[in-house]
Order: sequence, then C-alpha cells, then structure tokens
Amino acid sequence: MTQYKHVALIGLGLIAGSMSLAMRRAGMDVHITGTARSAETRAKALELGLVDAVFDTAAEAVKGADLIVLAVPIGAMGTVAAEIAPHLKAGATVTDVGSVKAAVVTAVAPHIPDNVHFIPGHPMAGTEKSGPEAGLAHLFDNRWCLLTPPEDVDQNALATLKSFWISLGAMVEEMEPDHHDLVAVVISHAPHLIAYTMVGVADDMSRVTKQEVVNYSAAGFRDFTRIAASDPTMWRDVFLHNKDATLEVLGRFTEELFALQRAIRTGDGDFLFDYFTRTRNIRRSIIDAGQDTDAVDFGRGPHAEDET
Amino acid sequence: MTQYKHVALIGLGLIAGSMSLAMRRAGMDVHITGTARSAETRAKALELGLVDAVFDTAAEAVKGADLIVLAVPIGAMGTVAAEIAPHLKAGATVTDVGSVKAAVVTAVAPHIPDNVHFIPGHPMAGTEKSGPEAGLAHLFDNRWCLLTPPEDVDQNALATLKSFWISLGAMVEEMEPDHHDLVAVVISHAPHLIAYTMVGVADDMSRVTKQEVVNYSAAGFRDFTRIAASDPTMWRDVFLHNKDATLEVLGRFTEELFALQRAIRTGDGDFLFDYFTRTRNIRRSIIDAGQDTDAVDFGRGPHAEDET
Repeated sequence: MTQYKHVALIGLGLIAGSMSLAMRRAGMDVHITGTARSAETRAKALELGLVDAVFDTAAEAVKGADLIVLAVPIGAMGTVAAEIAPHLKAGATVTDVGSVKAAVVTAVAPHIPDNVHFIPGHPMAGTEKSGPEAGLAHLFDNRWCLLTPPEDVDQNALATLKSFWISLGAMVEEMEPDHHDLVAVVISHAPHLIAYTMVGVADDMSRVTKQEVVNYSAAGFRDFTRIAASDPTMWRDVFLHNKDATLEVLGRFTEELFALQRAIRTGDGDFLFDYFTRTRNIRRSIIDAGQDTDAVDFGRGPHAEDET
Repeated sequence: MTQYKHVALIGLGLIAGSMSLAMRRAGMDVHITGTARSAETRAKALELGLVDAVFDTAAEAVKGADLIVLAVPIGAMGTVAAEIAPHLKAGATVTDVGSVKAAVVTAVAPHIPDNVHFIPGHPMAGTEKSGPEAGLAHLFDNRWCLLTPPEDVDQNALATLKSFWISLGAMVEEMEPDHHDLVAVVISHAPHLIAYTMVGVADDMSRVTKQEVVNYSAAGFRDFTRIAASDPTMWRDVFLHNKDATLEVLGRFTEELFALQRAIRTGDGDFLFDYFTRTRNIRRSIIDAGQDTDAVDFGRGPHAEDET
C-alpha cells in the first residue's frame, strides 16, 4: 500500500476544500492540483492555499495525479469523467464525493480506462455552507465515508483509498451502491426535501407575514431553514439522480404523516404520545454514537453558555 | 406600574426554571414560590434554588402571589385554573406560557375571578431539553414573548407584565389568540410534527438498519432528531389543542410536498432549483434579525472551531 503523491480535486467547494485542509493537517507529503468551473472559485482556492496549482480545465488538473477526486454536482460527473479519461495516469485511482452512488457509477464508470481504478465514495459530512471558503479541516473527523467499490476492485487501490480517508479523520465503510442510495435518502435527502418544503410553506402563507416567520423562528422553524440553506444545484442533482429511492421514502413519509394527522383529527392522544416517545429514544443513540453532542441548541452560537 | 413582589410558578420545567433564573439574573426583589406534579421535580427545583418555597399543591403555591405563571402542559391548564381560583389574591395577574392560546383562553378564563387579571402569554423560546435542570437564565434574551390580552384588559396589569418579560430579556408583542395559533403552527408546531414523522420513518424502514441511521445521521437527519427529542406530553397537548390550524398547515405542507415530489418524478430540475434558491433566502433574513447565528452547525458542540 502506497500513499498518494499527487491529488487532483475536480470542483473546489465545501467538500474538496475540507479534504485539502485535512490533507494539510495530516502533514501529507502531497501535491494538490485542482480546477473549478468558475474563475473566481479557482482564484479563491489558490489564494486560500487549498491547491498548489490551479488549472482552467479538468484535463490539465488530472495530469500525473495518483488520486482524482470528482467533487462536482452529480449531474456534471459524466461530462467531467469523459473529459479527464484520456489524460489519466495508468494505475491512478478515480473517486468521487457525490451524495448518490448508483447514478454516478452509471455516468462515470464507462469512461474510465481499464488501467485506472474507479472507487466511488461519499463522505457523510457537511455544513449548510458552500464554496471554497466553507472548507473545514476537521469536517470528516469521526464521520463515516461510504465507499461503493466494484466487485472486482483492486484490493491495493481500495486499501490505499481507505487509508487516505482515515488520514483525513474519517471512518470508512463499504456498501452496495443501491443500498447506499436508500440509506442516503433516509438520513439526508428526505430530511432536506422536507425542510425545503416546510420553509416554502412558511414563505407562502398569506395569513402569516414573512416578518412574523422571521421574528419567531426560534421556536423550531429556524433549524429547518439551516438545512434548507444548502446548495440548490447540488440538491437539484441529488433528487434528479436518486429518484426511485427518494419517491419510495417520501411515500412512506406521507403515509406516516397522514397517520399522525388522523390522530390529531380524531383526538387520539395516546397515539401521539407513544409516537413522540419512540422518536425521542433514537436521539439518545445518536449522541451515544458520537454523531451529535448533547449540548442544547438554540441558535446562539458557540459561546452561549458563557453569557449566563 | 409596579413590580411583582411574589411570583408563583405552577409547573417547574424548562420554561418556569428559565424564568426563575432570569428573574435572579435581573436582580429582582421577588419571592418565588412554586409547585409541580412530581415530588422529585419539586425537590429538584428547591435544591437548584429556582424557588424560595415549594408546595405540594398549586392552591398553596399561589397564596399571596402578585403574578401566577401557569407553566403546565396545555391539557392541564383548565384543571389548574379551577384549583387555584379560590386562592388568588385580589388584583393579582394570572398568565401562562402555553404554546397554544385560544384553547388556553377557553380552558382558563371562565375560572378566573373578576378581581384578577388574566393575560395569556407564549415565550417563543426553548430547547429540546425538559425538566427543572434544563433552565437557562438567558433563554429569553432577544426572543419574542407573545401576549394575547383580552380586549378589556387592565392597562396597568398589561404594562406590568410586559415590563416583567422585558426584564427577563425578552421582546414583547401583542396578538389575537387565533392569529397566534396559526403563526405558532407555521414556525413551531408543524416543523416539530414533521421532524417527529421523519424520525419515525427512519426508525421504521426495514431495509435500513437502526445502526446505519445512527452512524450516518450527520448528513441532515441528526437535526431532525434534536427537534424530535422535545417533551412528548407537551407536544401531544399542543396538537390536540390546536387542531384546526395544525390541520390547515399540514394540508398546505402536503400540497407543497406533492408538487416537489412530482417535479422529482418528472425530472423538472428548474422547478427544484428555483424552489431551493427561494428557501435559501429566508435564512438570511433570520440571521439578519438575530434569531440565529451564521455559524455552521454540524453537531460538534461549542468548541468545534478550536479543534482545527
């Protein structure tokens, strides 16, 4: 197992920026090249030191790279793969950080030459911010990176990629692409769509003013707006490319919502109480697993406790 | 306008506890009595210094009080009002902190003697914790407390109650009970119900294990579990007592969700992109209004930034 000497980041947003900062933090002896669609993003990434060299095209950025990370919206993955294919070094590994896996495999795999390894990935971490300035060196610490390697994957290439993610702070798990896509809907895509929906409803209620929604948002709504502030392009592509699993989970969601709605209409307090008690328990498991803190959150920022 | 010399807290949970701590912080010269249904809560509140004296019954706790705060679940408001009515001091003010107002007016007002003022209220602040230990002195700072006074309210009594809430850190607004109840559904009740629903769906998906949901929750789901960890009794009562407004907003929510679902099914990327862009803007307004911070939230607690 070797270490990557040259990593190319295709797309320079929150995830690629965080990967660069995490590589620097780990003290990796690595040359980082990169590209992004907009000249402004390319200049900003260079200025922030996220890349050692920046290129106008993905074709140039990948030349000589051992690891190529596709960190563009899902809908752009196929085009980028076609562009870089002729320029990939023999023995290199191509991975991605897309939130959907089956669609990425379909779009990218046909373009990858036989002498290059393609191992799709999805680091399950993020914030509501986007762009190169949004990167955080510790974004992946104690978070899971899911890899969906093909059955005939080169074991050395897989071990090297796993080791790379662990160096960035992550834990690594392997999964089938289809199963990944269903899990991702439950824990990420559906919650985002529902948050977007609720914010849309609030924005659109004619009998409640926008000022009322904003002023009184601390009562729960605020947390939805945080989730619904995520990058619109990224999320459009996620839903367009993970259609079946999304529609399946939304169907379950609606069924469940109707059951609660019916309990409200008929005044079935026991049903509501039991439901709310059951959902409370799962939070304890998440805190125990180190995936959230038990600190109360009420929108006051890091030093709220100091104010008392 | 005078100040309260004796405040009685009926119910000693998150809100009553925070009110006590905020009164102490403001340096009010006030005697605080209280009661709670469970002996354990009463003992804990006394131990924490939230009350100067604790009583087994609400009837005893309100004796001689200038301000009586009903801080019990909505469904218990009427019973408590009936119990305390014969023991209220002439000229005293009764208020409450319930999340629903029309139902509280209906349940409480008939019991209040003519020589006592009843001014319902709802401080729009909270955390996902409950119980007397959950109190925070700064919970109400820069948050809105909505009052729904009757038309013939005594102006002195109203001014004194407003001044009291301002001393606790809050801003005060008056509103009609029915309008309050609709606003509350949009910014609080519906988001909570939807979060409970999504957590219920995740808990119930047979093809996704509970361990997967817990491990990968950092991708959005985690924020829903925080909201869905709120007190089950409180929320059961909220939905049972604000039925019409809840069902109206849920109807709008479902309509909106179906529009997004249809866009996903038909592959209408423009519809999705425009929707996600619009909802992003409302977050900026909330941050500008000081109702949330712009700090990224990814579940790492107050000192996350120090880890880099």
